[in-house]
Amino acid sequence: MIEADLLLTNCHVATMTEGSVPYGAIEDAAVLIQNGRIVWIGARADLPVYKIVKTHDLGGRWVTPGLIDCHTHLVFGGDRSGEFEQRLEGVTYEDIARAGGGIVSSVRATRAESEDQLYASALKRLRGLKDTGVTTVEIKSGYGLDYDSELKMLRVARRIGREAGVRVRTSYLGLHAVPPEHKADRATYVDKAVDEILPAAHAEGLVDAVDAYCEPIAFSVEEVSRLFDKAEQLGLPVKLHADQLSDGGGAALAARYHALSADHIEHTTEAGVKAMAEAGVVAVLLPGAYLMLRETQAPPVALLRQHGVHMAVATDCNPGTSPVASMTAALNLACVQFRLTPAEALAGVTREAAKALGISDEVGTIEVGKMADLAVWDIKRPAELCYWLGTPLLHAVYKDGVQRA
Amino acid sequence: MIEADLLLTNCHVATMTEGSVPYGAIEDAAVLIQNGRIVWIGARADLPVYKIVKTHDLGGRWVTPGLIDCHTHLVFGGDRSGEFEQRLEGVTYEDIARAGGGIVSSVRATRAESEDQLYASALKRLRGLKDTGVTTVEIKSGYGLDYDSELKMLRVARRIGREAGVRVRTSYLGLHAVPPEHKADRATYVDKAVDEILPAAHAEGLVDAVDAYCEPIAFSVEEVSRLFDKAEQLGLPVKLHADQLSDGGGAALAARYHALSADHIEHTTEAGVKAMAEAGVVAVLLPGAYLMLRETQAPPVALLRQHGVHMAVATDCNPGTSPVASMTAALNLACVQFRLTPAEALAGVTREAAKALGISDEVGTIEVGKMADLAVWDIKRPAELCYWLGTPLLHAVYKDGVQRA
Ligand SMILES: [Zn+2]
Ligand SMILES: [Zn+2]
Repeated sequence: MIEADLLLTNCHVATMTEGSVPYGAIEDAAVLIQNGRIVWIGARADLPVYKIVKTHDLGGRWVTPGLIDCHTHLVFGGDRSGEFEQRLEGVTYEDIARAGGGIVSSVRATRAESEDQLYASALKRLRGLKDTGVTTVEIKSGYGLDYDSELKMLRVARRIGREAGVRVRTSYLGLHAVPPEHKADRATYVDKAVDEILPAAHAEGLVDAVDAYCEPIAFSVEEVSRLFDKAEQLGLPVKLHADQLSDGGGAALAARYHALSADHIEHTTEAGVKAMAEAGVVAVLLPGAYLMLRETQAPPVALLRQHGVHMAVATDCNPGTSPVASMTAALNLACVQFRLTPAEALAGVTREAAKALGISDEVGTIEVGKMADLAVWDIKRPAELCYWLGTPLLHAVYKDGVQRA
Repeated sequence: MIEADLLLTNCHVATMTEGSVPYGAIEDAAVLIQNGRIVWIGARADLPVYKIVKTHDLGGRWVTPGLIDCHTHLVFGGDRSGEFEQRLEGVTYEDIARAGGGIVSSVRATRAESEDQLYASALKRLRGLKDTGVTTVEIKSGYGLDYDSELKMLRVARRIGREAGVRVRTSYLGLHAVPPEHKADRATYVDKAVDEILPAAHAEGLVDAVDAYCEPIAFSVEEVSRLFDKAEQLGLPVKLHADQLSDGGGAALAARYHALSADHIEHTTEAGVKAMAEAGVVAVLLPGAYLMLRETQAPPVALLRQHGVHMAVATDCNPGTSPVASMTAALNLACVQFRLTPAEALAGVTREAAKALGISDEVGTIEVGKMADLAVWDIKRPAELCYWLGTPLLHAVYKDGVQRA
């Protein structure tokens, strides 16, 4: 006899397990949860004998894994709505940069704000993610770009994980941009980022993965390699912002280091895609940035499919190029812009997003042994999660088997 | 001494009145409301002597007019998420149409559903609009396409206006598509729509305006003219789905009948824009449909500006080409895709949207004498309403001077 704290019943479950059944769907299903983990999942008719504390009747709704936003810059100071407005009023990038705009303004604001301030503003954006079913969110540093500010950002991310009702995975993104005070000696900054900031953040338990921005306007393959070598020494997995604006060999670099993921990859060529496939690197697609930047070259989805590269989808929530804090908006945009099928897109924010964070053993599908992170939706079929834009669909969320307020 | 039911204070107000001040902004403002109407608006320091019942301190937040979604097909049966999914899985339009998909499937579902069912599903989508500050929504018929079903849709729209916490303006859109049973004798259907359905709906008080879809795949200029002549006889204003997929002279037709608005107008030429300007026709821009259809020709915004055509922005919420139920998403997309400035976009969902519905005397700006329909936002500047996608920003809404639950 199975003992369980909670029985979820009268629901359809998109388990999102791989296989021939779309969405891994089980109609008229039931789920048994004990100590925050799934202990049984199957058709209601097959329910074993059990001893339970509580039952929740879900009224015929659909259940998916709690959604995973595997690429965000959720913590930052200020916002860039002023710059957004100026651009639309015809002010050039150059003039905005000259006036101290662009990423530098986010760095300035992030350095100036306290942990409490950064926490409070991140919570507003997190609300948009939670309202769209997110139970796990990855959060990067990278707007601090000095020792104190990078660690401050990562501490705020950890606090979100402790206090805000979501699982958090952090990435150290020290090589996001060259900070203004190091414009003349970027090598010094790279040394600091690699040899001082990363080890200190790691020693404080603030780093789950190491990320970098590999692009001619940011950091070179050589600079990123130095960082990734250090990550390897420290036993930390890596991921990479790769080939977003040009083909800079980012995907191949990610593959060389067996990165968890290569993200953006709009300009990755077939050679890069093959390298990713061989190294098991997940492709993280970011349709919000594609929309906001009015990009025209979509990621090579056909090649990714052809070579069997796993595809995740994320918001890339950030103040400059993707002020997007809705997981269902990311789903819709991934389908509309990149032509992902709803099944691919939904796998991209569950099973594949978990892979992109290296936490597939714990979350991402609804299977026995995994954490009971679940989203319950007011929909008639899973594709609705990708079809609607801005229609509230979430009915309830369970994290670690407990219904979230 | 001014008597008032309610004083709103400690806020910044984007009055959205025309003039040289962006957003018609008044910083550190106050608003006095009596019997649902604004009786005073100005800087808090200038507040006259007043006698009030209640004060709401808005904590330094921004207030805008309640948003107006001036083009929706909010009431419909079923949805088309299945078709959305099939298309992404590679099924062709032709195969979907052969299998009874497309608009015909929405017509079938709408005819089959009861008023209660249609009301319930419309409320879900309305939740998305209300959560993004909407206090007035236009709702079209056009998925019934027979006498009973068109009137049913319009009755549901009226019920939303009575019971759902928003102001509703209805449009009769009988000439939306040729119903399947009239494929062989479209003239008979046009006769019915013009001579039977419209007069009956009007007699029942269900029609605020008359709309049509003028496009080679829908109705011709001649057919629409017949309808508009009847509308004129009945004293009803008209509006038009014009030049969405091709330049079919829709804008000129709208101008000839002094329509309230011409909507979509992606393919309108300069002659059409000039005609609209001369006749005072508002251009209603629908960026949701543009996104979902992956259109590449944006409406002629530069020409509209040059000739002084007023621009509104709406969701076009509908099951086929714009399953969008978020006003802030429409704002973001209008800026990103059509390059409207945030000030233009916000005017487009307030002042100009009111013009597009012929209700400028009542709503659309924050001025003495207008209804106290107000949205209160958790933002630092109005442009944030256009900058974020999917981040919850709404703090509170007042409709007719009463805070909405
Ligand atoms: Zn990023
Ligand atoms: Zn329409």
